[in-house]
Amino acid sequence: MPYQAFDSLAAVAFAKQRGLIAADADVSCREIGDGNLNLVFHLQTADSSFIVKQALPYARCVGESWPLSLERARIEAEVLKAHGKVAPEWVVKVLDFDLEQYAMVEEDLSHLELLRKRLINAEKVDNMGQNLADYLADSLYAYSDFELDPKQKKALVSQFINPDLCLITEDLFFTDPYREHERNDIFPASRQSAEALWQDDELLARVAELKVHFLSCPQSLLHGDVHSGSVFSGPGELKVIDAEFGFFGPIGFDVGSVIGNLLLAWCRHHTLGNEAYAAWLVEQCLVFWQRFESRFSALLKGSKDVALVNARYQRRFVAKVLQDTLGYAGTELIRRTLGLAHVADITSLDDELRAKAEQQALSLGKALVLASDEATSIGLLSELLKKAPVSAAA
Amino acid sequence: MPYQAFDSLAAVAFAKQRGLIAADADVSCREIGDGNLNLVFHLQTADSSFIVKQALPYARCVGESWPLSLERARIEAEVLKAHGKVAPEWVVKVLDFDLEQYAMVEEDLSHLELLRKRLINAEKVDNMGQNLADYLADSLYAYSDFELDPKQKKALVSQFINPDLCLITEDLFFTDPYREHERNDIFPASRQSAEALWQDDELLARVAELKVHFLSCPQSLLHGDVHSGSVFSGPGELKVIDAEFGFFGPIGFDVGSVIGNLLLAWCRHHTLGNEAYAAWLVEQCLVFWQRFESRFSALLKGSKDVALVNARYQRRFVAKVLQDTLGYAGTELIRRTLGLAHVADITSLDDELRAKAEQQALSLGKALVLASDEATSIGLLSELLKKAPVSAAA
Repeated sequence: MPYQAFDSLAAVAFAKQRGLIAADADVSCREIGDGNLNLVFHLQTADSSFIVKQALPYARCVGESWPLSLERARIEAEVLKAHGKVAPEWVVKVLDFDLEQYAMVEEDLSHLELLRKRLINAEKVDNMGQNLADYLADSLYAYSDFELDPKQKKALVSQFINPDLCLITEDLFFTDPYREHERNDIFPASRQSAEALWQDDELLARVAELKVHFLSCPQSLLHGDVHSGSVFSGPGELKVIDAEFGFFGPIGFDVGSVIGNLLLAWCRHHTLGNEAYAAWLVEQCLVFWQRFESRFSALLKGSKDVALVNARYQRRFVAKVLQDTLGYAGTELIRRTLGLAHVADITSLDDELRAKAEQQALSLGKALVLASDEATSIGLLSELLKKAPVSAAA
Repeated sequence: MPYQAFDSLAAVAFAKQRGLIAADADVSCREIGDGNLNLVFHLQTADSSFIVKQALPYARCVGESWPLSLERARIEAEVLKAHGKVAPEWVVKVLDFDLEQYAMVEEDLSHLELLRKRLINAEKVDNMGQNLADYLADSLYAYSDFELDPKQKKALVSQFINPDLCLITEDLFFTDPYREHERNDIFPASRQSAEALWQDDELLARVAELKVHFLSCPQSLLHGDVHSGSVFSGPGELKVIDAEFGFFGPIGFDVGSVIGNLLLAWCRHHTLGNEAYAAWLVEQCLVFWQRFESRFSALLKGSKDVALVNARYQRRFVAKVLQDTLGYAGTELIRRTLGLAHVADITSLDDELRAKAEQQALSLGKALVLASDEATSIGLLSELLKKAPVSAAA
């Protein structure tokens, strides 16, 4: 059957046809997608439930004007399987994938909540930093040059070339927010800061470097979009979803996305005067990096490539990942403030607070990008945060 | 017809079948290959001549024990065409390629001489540094992130993934020479220096970094093997051949290969006491880099990616290419001394002089690798050469 966008009936028929649900079962189905690129259905029978996720051939938020290869659905399923193989505890299970309908069946995670929602609600999510660090250390090490045979790595790089979705990141993270562009969505109160930022030549030079690094540094198979809306969590459980942006890129991009999103939550709570929670978020950033660093460094010691078994080099590699991480965290703060895609952490604030939170995000983002090149420790982040303006509501 | 290794008769039949030579023409044909991976035939008719080059499914020098994908013949033809498109003056013309026989027909360059031979003979080759700089600046810029559309670049990266031949470089440049390995070929007089070098932890750390950069930095479509045996030259003419090692890698690797090979010739002539010629070789290294730097920098100004149009960033990019260049030049000196593949510049010396030339190559190679990270100007090379031991024969 040629590709056709599902409605609820078609999603159920698909699950039955693939043998995940008995042909005569009663199934209730509702579309639950709030993403921009896919249709997502929740299927419930008397004794089981699943998610059916189907790629659309265009970006949903901008109608059919932004065509996107359906190939990304294959990539998403394969990234989740690849990461799930080496970090099974932290990745949503892919139960089935069909290349004709570009549709995937996943385990149902509706007993969990999106991390972004929990962060907005000021919940201290158990082991959040540690779990995300373990997920990234294990999956990013496993597909790196340290672990993979060079031929196998090259085959995987080719398998995960993801031009359409990488282009979105290339444009929306590294290009549009640094100049006047119709895709930007700039809150009026942030306009002046945006224009000042566009004149900062050193910032633009550093962002160019981060962009080229994103384009041409296939260190490992990234998730590519580990923001707090790609993570489900609940008591004793954390699961990463939505890997359609996966490709071989710089490790610091994934690591920096996590920190960038925790800092966006920090901008919210610092502005609201929730200082205890803001401090917890900072602590989680530090825990996250320290855990990632120690676990990833421990894995490096077992490198399969004898030429890379050198402690001095491995320390330098991790030190560079930290610099990249802080730089990419900075670009996440900036693009979520000036670019196309904002976050509810900030946009759900009333206008006056939103303006203040956006100032925080922009000044912190800029400081991170500018300082990242010289960073030798995650302590830099605490230093930068100490310099942040006192919260408005305090 | 399934793949079959040609003899002279088959090479002629192939050229006739492909329509390059009339079916009834008288053709003389001789095998002229001295490479290790291919059969090379020279075909001569009354009014024309060609080269037929066919890939062997194994490395010729080690019998059938080192299998190599025939795919590399496609890659070679496509790299030569891709570089020829943007730097036609400096690249051998590919007249035909057949994917079934993995055989390519090229223009005949037998009126020219291999550059290595001319360097060994102490010929001051006209415009050598300039011509090689123009070749590399034009071809490496054209396939970089500055010029290519990101989607087009990713498709090309995939098209030029070259696992078998990259593995040769990965092993023979960056792994074997830095430890005891059966593939090494160490001249007895250099044994002690080799063992000392293997204990130099900082050197090993820097070489690990250069290896990872080679593995995971697809900056542009490289030739991949621009040593002086891959260059033909004659009055007013210079042509690069043998691009089967081509892939998307770090620009400094190609640029450093040129400098490394000029320095191998320098080790020969400095040891022989040919100081005027040795000085000319150094001057050519400087001319080569300066020309490359100015031409490549001028091209960067026209970058198609608006996010990369930033003079500050572009200067940093070129500065990093210089560091890579010096590092890779250093690894070329070391691997040509301790590794599997030596160069006639050194091996054709008598034993006593060879021992001295190898000492030069090793100490210069090591100094280049160690200093490359901090290099801010090509002047570093002259500084290092001034510190070289006085020539033996002087």
